[in-house]
Amino acid sequence: MRTLDQARLPQPDLAEVEIGTVLQALADPVRLQIVRLLSRQGTAACGELDVPVKRSTVSHHLRTLRETGLLETHLKGNTRVSKVRREELDRRFPGLLASILDAAPAVPAAPPEEEPGGADGER
Amino acid sequence: MRTLDQARLPQPDLAEVEIGTVLQALADPVRLQIVRLLSRQGTAACGELDVPVKRSTVSHHLRTLRETGLLETHLKGNTRVSKVRREELDRRFPGLLASILDAAPAVPAAPPEEEPGGADGER
Repeated sequence: MRTLDQARLPQPDLAEVEIGTVLQALADPVRLQIVRLLSRQGTAACGELDVPVKRSTVSHHLRTLRETGLLETHLKGNTRVSKVRREELDRRFPGLLASILDAAPAVPAAPPEEEPGGADGER
Repeated sequence: MRTLDQARLPQPDLAEVEIGTVLQALADPVRLQIVRLLSRQGTAACGELDVPVKRSTVSHHLRTLRETGLLETHLKGNTRVSKVRREELDRRFPGLLASILDAAPAVPAAPPEEEPGGADGER
């Protein structure tokens, strides 16, 4: 009979979560974007997240992120409101989330260089 | 006509590598173990890495890690010797590798608690 945590959806104890599980969860670009947005916004419901996928997909990703231990989700009436478990994550994996969220985007790959005068027919 | 880099296998420019690609590569426990071992050992050939998988699997993972941008591999005679691109990685993703390599292993999940006197037949 839980009373205090009644409105909080189930989530793992971070001590039991392997780093590989967290990396796997954040390797997906949409899930990473969700964590980025939630880190900035503080808390958000599914429909409040500006990501270029269907709402059902966002909902699925939110569930994955909660089950992985990255998000905490509370029921407020009929709405599920999520936030990043930032302090707990920083204790369990010091520096990890900061380094991932601060990563600069990649620059597009440059076209392959042609050696001056070195072309030998393979065009 | 490359001369200086003749013995180095192809590798991406880290500026062109997305954080998600790196996370995906390190999410695999064997690949993470390989990077951990190489970080400690400095350099190693495929057969010098103590991981619980077949040598052909290690070889495949080494290739994935090189193509992702995590490792640099040189041909020395018939041997491929790899090392972590640590300095470059630290410049591109500050703090990332340290936080991942320093992560403590997870503790096994505790068995579900039974509420004293709260059992209602579901054993």
